Amino acid sequence: MNTDRATRRGRPGYDLPSLLAVAVAVFNERGYEATSMEDLSRRLGITKSAIYHHVASKDELLRLALDRALSGLAEAAEEAAALDGRAIDRLEHLVRRSVHVLVERLPFVTLLLRVRGNTAAERRALDRRREFDHLVGDLVRQAAADGDVRPDVDPAAAGRLVFGMVNSLTEWYRPRGGLDAAAVADAVCAVAFDGLRGRAAAPPP
Amino acid sequence: MNTDRATRRGRPGYDLPSLLAVAVAVFNERGYEATSMEDLSRRLGITKSAIYHHVASKDELLRLALDRALSGLAEAAEEAAALDGRAIDRLEHLVRRSVHVLVERLPFVTLLLRVRGNTAAERRALDRRREFDHLVGDLVRQAAADGDVRPDVDPAAAGRLVFGMVNSLTEWYRPRGGLDAAAVADAVCAVAFDGLRGRAAAPPP
Repeated sequence: MNTDRATRRGRPGYDLPSLLAVAVAVFNERGYEATSMEDLSRRLGITKSAIYHHVASKDELLRLALDRALSGLAEAAEEAAALDGRAIDRLEHLVRRSVHVLVERLPFVTLLLRVRGNTAAERRALDRRREFDHLVGDLVRQAAADGDVRPDVDPAAAGRLVFGMVNSLTEWYRPRGGLDAAAVADAVCAVAFDGLRGRAAAPPP
Repeated sequence: MNTDRATRRGRPGYDLPSLLAVAVAVFNERGYEATSMEDLSRRLGITKSAIYHHVASKDELLRLALDRALSGLAEAAEEAAALDGRAIDRLEHLVRRSVHVLVERLPFVTLLLRVRGNTAAERRALDRRREFDHLVGDLVRQAAADGDVRPDVDPAAAGRLVFGMVNSLTEWYRPRGGLDAAAVADAVCAVAFDGLRGRAAAPPP
């Protein structure tokens, strides 16, 4: 789309990223299934054919949006897998980087976490989430084998719980709420790896 | 409904709890908005008028379902608030009891956590969730004032993270998966309050 011309006409000009951002906001509000191209056209203030200038279909918008979340998480996973050092430290790195991805791509990850596998794009996204979960499971098991994870918690459950904490950001974190990504990542790692309980309160040995 | 007669006719007989269980399963699969009484009738294998024998509307099914989740959480909250002892122990009690409620009423809490406030019943449910969140926030702040919570984590974020972990059960816990409610509650409390990291791995003082 020629942005200059669109602006001269008094209509908003979109490039693909800005169009995608609006589409994802609408998908999150109304649900992907319940959103029509007509709804998107109304919200964007441009015609359907102007949308089709950027993407072939609503499904392509979904794929692009899910990829934006998944590529961030995949980069975090590759980075963690490539690190030297103990599995527990690679796991902590993965948690920290994942929090950054969630905070920086919050609407995209929110959409990803609501996907239930109704379309090919959704099933592909679920497969990629499953790969990520496997990496988490492998890291927790390796950390447990190293003796770095408390022995009284099932490693599979532990990985789910820690990422349950990370994923809860999509439910309550608001960018304007005060805490920045680094502060949230610190809080998640502090609670997940060392626990909420203040050490000072422990009885003397 | 006269169950004997329904059985004689070769149709399934439902009382309100069994009808509600099926309705909640369908709401969770398809979404509440997208589910019609016609869909419910097909899935239940009974006529719509047989459903109206039990409830006045789809909205009443939603209210009953959300109440089933909320009443469990409200009981857990009252129990925790009435306990003697330190706030951190009341908080741990609340987390433990909440895990039991989630495990025992999983489809109902799953529905509750997806509610976005589109109807009066949903807004009332969100208000009751907010009351619960306030109690959690109060307990964490009190525990922090007692010196029982690590000082480097914002109390509001801490409460959200711990219950993010609890609520993640609706995403991954499966009753036939092996762990029972008590084992899951132990795992959640172990990770949330004392952290995933094995103490044995800590450097000697």
